[in-house]
Amino acid sequence: MAERVAGPEIERLVQLLARLPGLGPRSARRAVLHLIRKREELLSPLADAMRVAQERIVACSVCGNIDTSDPCTICRDARRDPSILVVVETVADLWALERAGLLNARYHVLGGVLSPLDGVGPEDLTIASLIERARAGEVREIVLAVNATVDGQTTAHYIADLLAPTGVKVTRLAHGVPVGGELDYLDEGTLAAALERRTVF
Amino acid sequence: MAERVAGPEIERLVQLLARLPGLGPRSARRAVLHLIRKREELLSPLADAMRVAQERIVACSVCGNIDTSDPCTICRDARRDPSILVVVETVADLWALERAGLLNARYHVLGGVLSPLDGVGPEDLTIASLIERARAGEVREIVLAVNATVDGQTTAHYIADLLAPTGVKVTRLAHGVPVGGELDYLDEGTLAAALERRTVF
Repeated sequence: MAERVAGPEIERLVQLLARLPGLGPRSARRAVLHLIRKREELLSPLADAMRVAQERIVACSVCGNIDTSDPCTICRDARRDPSILVVVETVADLWALERAGLLNARYHVLGGVLSPLDGVGPEDLTIASLIERARAGEVREIVLAVNATVDGQTTAHYIADLLAPTGVKVTRLAHGVPVGGELDYLDEGTLAAALERRTVF
Repeated sequence: MAERVAGPEIERLVQLLARLPGLGPRSARRAVLHLIRKREELLSPLADAMRVAQERIVACSVCGNIDTSDPCTICRDARRDPSILVVVETVADLWALERAGLLNARYHVLGGVLSPLDGVGPEDLTIASLIERARAGEVREIVLAVNATVDGQTTAHYIADLLAPTGVKVTRLAHGVPVGGELDYLDEGTLAAALERRTVF
């Protein structure tokens, strides 16, 4: 949209929305038109919700989750098992595990993975505070739920080495065939893991 | 994301963003995490831009475009040819034509198409004001740039009938093979139109 079509205010809104993951310039324009059509039901509440998020959302100083309270809802939840700590790369991963609803544990968000190429070292992640939490005595098991990528696994090994002296049990997610996965589309590493850890039918 | 994962404020932002076209619940969550990571560069300016849009964007009382001024930038542009009026269904169509940069004309946004099934009659569109603009004397040609859908074409016929007494020339967009289009994938109507209106090579 050239600036002469509409005012700079609309153009600015389009450009900002286009920076969201999943939206490009074209879908951002459609979103803006939708927002303006639904001014009272959507544009106004969304502007408010963003303002509230901007002002009130903080990172949890314990686990790194984001919430409007610190410690976050999960860390304050007394029904959560404090003896299991699930280490994830990002808040998105934490949410994914929570959506699955499989765990009643607490979390530790690393904030990324070690990546020498991108200049991400241990001091850029929340590894020091993880070791601290492990040493505090309450935690019995640390589940390294990092992505099965090279960087993710490197980071897991690095953390496992650091955790060894604490005596806390360190586990990781199982490799195998994803549910619904077709063997034909899986890589050899996954197939090897699935075969090696095969279970009795 | 269950409410217990994060506060209701985050959940509300996710739900509102998920209502934008092109975003679903999952991409809305990713967008929210992105927004919170880029709080100063993106979340805050976006909240502001939405507030500005909410407060300042109005529909042009002349053509139906949206802008922060009424009449809109296009209607106020003295360099635009006032003798050609391009009739479009929506502001999105107006923007699409402007992006193509082919026209130096003015527009008239209908606000939709006639659709008896959806209860959209002539009084729900800006047809009356279009006739008024046609009668005012400045307009020599009205291009019916509506979609090539059944409802679009029905609306075009309806408008053309109403415009006939004004003596203004009424035209419509050509049908044919889209640039880059493959014949194999085109419907018979398009092929027939492309054949019928074939031009000398």
